[in-house]
Amino acid sequence: MKIALLLSLLLLATTSSLRAESAVEQWGVFEVSLSGPTNGNPFTEVQFSARFFQGPQSVIADGFYDGGGSYRVRFMPDKPGEWHYLTRSSCAQLNGRTGEFRVTPPSAANHGPVRVAHVYHFAYADGTPYEELGTTCYGWIHQRKALQEETLQTLAGAPFNKLRMCVFPKWYDWNTNEPILYPYEGTPPRAWDTTRFNPVFFQHLEQRILDLQRLGIQADVILFHPYDGGHWGFDRMPAVSDDLYLRYLTARLSAYRNVWWSLANEWDFMKQKDESDFVRFGEIVAAHDPYHHLLSIHNGAKIFNNTLPWITHASIQNGMAVESPASAELYRDVYRKPVVYDEVKYEGNIPRRRGNLTPPELVFRFWNGVVAGTYVGHGETYLSPDNILWWSKGGVLKGQSPARLAFLRKVLADAPPEGIDPVDKWQDAKYGGQPGKYYLIYFGKATPKSWKFLLPKPSSASGVTLTNGAQFTAEVLDTWDMTVTPVPGTFTLQATTDYGYADQDGRTIDLPEKPYLAIRIKRVIP
Amino acid sequence: MKIALLLSLLLLATTSSLRAESAVEQWGVFEVSLSGPTNGNPFTEVQFSARFFQGPQSVIADGFYDGGGSYRVRFMPDKPGEWHYLTRSSCAQLNGRTGEFRVTPPSAANHGPVRVAHVYHFAYADGTPYEELGTTCYGWIHQRKALQEETLQTLAGAPFNKLRMCVFPKWYDWNTNEPILYPYEGTPPRAWDTTRFNPVFFQHLEQRILDLQRLGIQADVILFHPYDGGHWGFDRMPAVSDDLYLRYLTARLSAYRNVWWSLANEWDFMKQKDESDFVRFGEIVAAHDPYHHLLSIHNGAKIFNNTLPWITHASIQNGMAVESPASAELYRDVYRKPVVYDEVKYEGNIPRRRGNLTPPELVFRFWNGVVAGTYVGHGETYLSPDNILWWSKGGVLKGQSPARLAFLRKVLADAPPEGIDPVDKWQDAKYGGQPGKYYLIYFGKATPKSWKFLLPKPSSASGVTLTNGAQFTAEVLDTWDMTVTPVPGTFTLQATTDYGYADQDGRTIDLPEKPYLAIRIKRVIP
Repeated sequence: MKIALLLSLLLLATTSSLRAESAVEQWGVFEVSLSGPTNGNPFTEVQFSARFFQGPQSVIADGFYDGGGSYRVRFMPDKPGEWHYLTRSSCAQLNGRTGEFRVTPPSAANHGPVRVAHVYHFAYADGTPYEELGTTCYGWIHQRKALQEETLQTLAGAPFNKLRMCVFPKWYDWNTNEPILYPYEGTPPRAWDTTRFNPVFFQHLEQRILDLQRLGIQADVILFHPYDGGHWGFDRMPAVSDDLYLRYLTARLSAYRNVWWSLANEWDFMKQKDESDFVRFGEIVAAHDPYHHLLSIHNGAKIFNNTLPWITHASIQNGMAVESPASAELYRDVYRKPVVYDEVKYEGNIPRRRGNLTPPELVFRFWNGVVAGTYVGHGETYLSPDNILWWSKGGVLKGQSPARLAFLRKVLADAPPEGIDPVDKWQDAKYGGQPGKYYLIYFGKATPKSWKFLLPKPSSASGVTLTNGAQFTAEVLDTWDMTVTPVPGTFTLQATTDYGYADQDGRTIDLPEKPYLAIRIKRVIP
Repeated sequence: MKIALLLSLLLLATTSSLRAESAVEQWGVFEVSLSGPTNGNPFTEVQFSARFFQGPQSVIADGFYDGGGSYRVRFMPDKPGEWHYLTRSSCAQLNGRTGEFRVTPPSAANHGPVRVAHVYHFAYADGTPYEELGTTCYGWIHQRKALQEETLQTLAGAPFNKLRMCVFPKWYDWNTNEPILYPYEGTPPRAWDTTRFNPVFFQHLEQRILDLQRLGIQADVILFHPYDGGHWGFDRMPAVSDDLYLRYLTARLSAYRNVWWSLANEWDFMKQKDESDFVRFGEIVAAHDPYHHLLSIHNGAKIFNNTLPWITHASIQNGMAVESPASAELYRDVYRKPVVYDEVKYEGNIPRRRGNLTPPELVFRFWNGVVAGTYVGHGETYLSPDNILWWSKGGVLKGQSPARLAFLRKVLADAPPEGIDPVDKWQDAKYGGQPGKYYLIYFGKATPKSWKFLLPKPSSASGVTLTNGAQFTAEVLDTWDMTVTPVPGTFTLQATTDYGYADQDGRTIDLPEKPYLAIRIKRVIP
């Protein structure tokens, strides 16, 4: 066995460059790189994959051609220990190659890929809760290098842990510059050989995904979008090109732990595609990503059938649903999946109603979404003489919401690991939390002078019971001024109606008659 | 051919009673009744069906045993003219029987069964719009005869055109009387032979469905419900009994044009069933109802997957969604089917929050649903010394909402045949209507002093364009006081922003500073 391994390694050393050395951390990227043919069309004519295995467990990953005679296949191990691989290829030179590598435990900042947890929420693979708080820079990787660096610098100081970004460049209002790189061989703007990818484009994309990973940010990679309008034509390729692209992209990116797949932005605005095309796209991605990264599809005016089994969470555009927690929570019941409002209009001042929310209005929408047990996405569209709007190109953030979203993120980090759910469903939407344990009560635009302490009786479905005498503490949160003010003393429950518990002394909490207040209530564990 | 027919008819005359004579109107019930065996268990041991055909078109309908040696098979013809039938049975006596009958055009009040129309709405089979306005008397057919008659008399003077009603009796708060009839042979309360139906029970059910039909009311027949709690055990029969019951019921009722199927009330509260049971139920009903009557399933706390193809419309319980049109419209996008809020809490005064809405609150919820392009259901729960609450037993209506719902029904009858849709989706939910043609603007609890005339620019998806100079009339509707006040003169459009048209003279409409006002705007057709 050891001799076989040695032979394998020797063979590899002679014919390929094994980029990742023979040790890689769990949820890192192990890559097998082999030299192979350059004649014909290596992107379409060479089948190449590998099986990675440890004991009875095995994963098959597609390989890809990376130009210059290099063929690679990548693997994200989900367990430490010794792993082996065996390649398969239609080309003898790439076929039957074997190797062994050691996977070490993950480093401190590596919690693995993000998964759905507790039906409506997310957690990293190691169980660490992931409280989604995303922003949007659709075309940031297509801008000049210095601007990309500036975007990364901004993100390093911003509260966001997810970024929506397009693979294909964007041609739209305030977005009429050519990208620094093109995904295909050919001549701009429209003469492309869609059977020949440009490896440098994809290497750059990967580098940016890794840059985000280092910042603790999930890359919500948008595979198709309508903001091409035929300028380059990446929105209207034939089906065979679409499918080839999806297989190439899943082969390249699946092993990166911070990748999420967003099949499309505003899928229904892509008039050259049918709904059935997106079903096919979803099935291709689901079948070829061996790790089943989060997979969603973002709508324009027409919401996709998010009940389909390969859709992991609902990625919703709705300009109105988060105007109240009562409406924000409705999609949860329908999908029984996490609901991420990836577009709720943007903070900004463009003369379009999709992009002229005031900062308090956007923060208000986030909080409505939070107490409704959903997640809300940020975007910023302030006009700028250089036409650099964060929403599309990145750069610097000019708005006032990010600081408040940083405050919100701290609140979320302090919430129960099961996430925040509506606790008085279809009755009083301002209560989020985990019944019996933790409550976040958001008053929105109301300006209450006081609030009489009242907790809803947990539903029988929750499995939680409250009893008279249980004790809670309270804090007043000013979500705009970013303050947390503890309320002195504790509150002791006494049932008042069939539906609620008040404080036994009938205590109320004084409030400063301002909008955007919340109260956080936590159980005192004796 | 004529001789063959004559022979068939002669044969039929000797061995069976052909209840429906040889002429029946379109969408009426044609019934073949034959005598057959009474030994063994005729409900389970005899297969019996018939094919009804006219030229190349044919419909296969299941027959059923109606007791006393009578076997029947019913057919609802959807075309006038000559029809033929041929029976099939496992019993020679019932097999191969043929006949011919004439179908006449429908009578004036007969518009056929109700179907989905314009994606989100309903129409009768002859194209007449059907504006759903339902109420609920779950157990009315199980009460004493005089009370049933009183219920029918009340319905004759009420605005409702749909009634939700259970097949099985109800055992619940204010509902602990035994029914007048039981669906099975056996001994109350729990010793039933679920392989032997009680035909008299079902004949009575059919009679009540016909009584409703005469009043122009759709019977939303609820096939299962949890309000048995094991008292009779109809909520916890074995799967084989459930399935037999569904086949028996679809065989008996499918030919009645005003039947709708509601698989369950609060399906998820039936703890002895799984979600998969209801999928099976739905598939059975869809497969055995040859006419594909409207088919839905009503939820408790957990919403069913209403995207399933055999579900024709979403039947939703949600105590909060219709508190605003903004939330009421959300399910439409998800399902792309009509949304019927069959339970939004009730007008009444029971000490449960599901049944203590004030009359204005219930009417408010209806109007929110209407401008959101959905339909809302009525229920009434006023405490009564005789424990007769309309919601369950029928009797008389005591509330103040029905008069206002009659007013609403008149408004709906005057609306465009395509129905009312949200016209400024995800932006301004108070506008319902058909863009360019008809608008209903509902102000809910706001008490405006005036309203500046403003119509949203139709979305490009609507295919409608408005231009400066188009003229409209307006009326002020007081939805509580039930008045319609025309606004003098006309309004002439002039584009003001990218999103709207105002009146060219900037006209406003004076309003009486009361809640529950609406404005109706209609295009002046030159």
